[in-house]
Amino acid sequence: MIDQRILPAEFKYISYTSASAVADGIRDMVVRGAPAIGCAAAYGVALAALELCSKNSDEFTQGMEEAFEVLAQSRPTAVNLFWAIDRMRKLMRNSKGTSAEIANILLEEAHKVKKEDIEINRKMGSNGAELLNDGARVLTHCNAGALATAGHGTALGVFRSAVEVGKKVSVIADETRPFLQGARLTAWEMVQESIPVTLISDNMSGHLMSHGEIDAVVVGTDRVAGNGDVANKIGTYMVAVLAKRHNIPFYVACPLSTIDRSITSGKYIPIEERPIEEVTGYRDCQWAAEGIEVRNPAFDVTPAELVTGLITEKGVVLNPTTEKINKLF
Amino acid sequence: MIDQRILPAEFKYISYTSASAVADGIRDMVVRGAPAIGCAAAYGVALAALELCSKNSDEFTQGMEEAFEVLAQSRPTAVNLFWAIDRMRKLMRNSKGTSAEIANILLEEAHKVKKEDIEINRKMGSNGAELLNDGARVLTHCNAGALATAGHGTALGVFRSAVEVGKKVSVIADETRPFLQGARLTAWEMVQESIPVTLISDNMSGHLMSHGEIDAVVVGTDRVAGNGDVANKIGTYMVAVLAKRHNIPFYVACPLSTIDRSITSGKYIPIEERPIEEVTGYRDCQWAAEGIEVRNPAFDVTPAELVTGLITEKGVVLNPTTEKINKLF
Repeated sequence: MIDQRILPAEFKYISYTSASAVADGIRDMVVRGAPAIGCAAAYGVALAALELCSKNSDEFTQGMEEAFEVLAQSRPTAVNLFWAIDRMRKLMRNSKGTSAEIANILLEEAHKVKKEDIEINRKMGSNGAELLNDGARVLTHCNAGALATAGHGTALGVFRSAVEVGKKVSVIADETRPFLQGARLTAWEMVQESIPVTLISDNMSGHLMSHGEIDAVVVGTDRVAGNGDVANKIGTYMVAVLAKRHNIPFYVACPLSTIDRSITSGKYIPIEERPIEEVTGYRDCQWAAEGIEVRNPAFDVTPAELVTGLITEKGVVLNPTTEKINKLF
Repeated sequence: MIDQRILPAEFKYISYTSASAVADGIRDMVVRGAPAIGCAAAYGVALAALELCSKNSDEFTQGMEEAFEVLAQSRPTAVNLFWAIDRMRKLMRNSKGTSAEIANILLEEAHKVKKEDIEINRKMGSNGAELLNDGARVLTHCNAGALATAGHGTALGVFRSAVEVGKKVSVIADETRPFLQGARLTAWEMVQESIPVTLISDNMSGHLMSHGEIDAVVVGTDRVAGNGDVANKIGTYMVAVLAKRHNIPFYVACPLSTIDRSITSGKYIPIEERPIEEVTGYRDCQWAAEGIEVRNPAFDVTPAELVTGLITEKGVVLNPTTEKINKLF
């Protein structure tokens, strides 16, 4: 995995050889972004299977169930984690053969999850690119880029695809406290590809909207409920409320694997609270006064009423509802 | 001046002996906060007068006009700066005597500006405290505390006064990127006085509001237009929009010296853009990707329609309008 905690100052890979180490990598945010977490979990399962491939069937199955469990405990909000684990677990249960043969099947499946993710991102990108006008100034929050996926990206994939079809797009990136995915990762990805990008702090988008300087918003998501409510990086909800006030379209790039029809509303999406040191500073640079309490919810929920459209690999769902979402599946 | 750039890690005073050094201190944000800037400017004028007190009348007047000019150029948004300069200039022009005598009059006036500011803050605090229920969880943005004034504070003065009359109040402090006045200064002030304070990043208040965890918002202001539009630290507008959506009262603690009746609307308030290094990191800790553009508007304008009330030393103006504001004067 690319260590996303230290980008853009350093570009470094970390290698993993066990499911529990992959789970630690997800928890510590070496890798983050819902689709990338899904891919990482699939490979985590494959690593567990390779470790266990000389065991007999019972030991293999028991070891694998432990691996599923440790991976599922890593982060609670992004549904792609559970989607990938379920996919791998079902395949394992339906596969016949020696432990080594099943391990090989699971590794091939992880490769497939990764390959499909890129294909899906390209389809979403293409569908989303049609929504952006030439010259559009588009706000995005957090990083829903190549780094958050297996490649191309969800929200940033829309920008990349728009540029590929010849549209001029400029990106406004919220810095995205506390982990600074916007300042560090989105800005870095856009600079790599010479897509114009302007960094702002999270509290500036309302001001720019009120001055007519933002034409659209495109974000990713960690989980969409069956009714179209969108869980995404903390701060997304505030952006959506401001966009609504200023009649700016608010789009969510969302592969079907991120839609969780097992829950009927965003209020059932678990919201992770992360360590306080993320809010009191950034890594070694700690600035907050001592003796304070801290809240650090990592995600929030934007109700479907604020969502202009879900950009999926199967097309754009305008003004999403349970009925429209069910039709996708 | 207390060097507010390095709080809370270090508590250090810087001494000034000239108006131009005071102007630099205001520009560099050694001191910040509209009322504190007003006081600093008044003392800057007094310092210029003391420097010039052995000059003849013409040289004194010319030197003083240069001092007024250099101070007025320091920061554009907070009207208290211009209010204090105008007050000192008028007094100078109406004063008779030697340069030394006038210099002494101006120094006395600076002391008076400071003393009045504390008295006004106490009156605002008392008026505002009545608006808060016992047990209220109150969000504030930036630092409108003792550090932003000559003492007691505007928004934090309301919390202090509420506590003095026996109300339990807990404060939620937005960290306030990019200069982190909330994390560094508001949090520090509240800890000093054992008022419970919880730090969040700027993009979290909407989430807390949607979960019923914020009962009221109280902020300070850098300039209020004649119609009640409020310029305050960048991000205030987003908080106000979210508060409106959730029917949470949004109060602005605002001495009359911060109301600028010479302008009829917030759209005429100049919004300062500050250096990009504030947004690409914090001081020596720089994290943003290289090669990006940056926007750094230091303030935004909250329209009067979103303001539940202006808390002034002459009472609370609910749903402010031009007519109601004119009645205050």
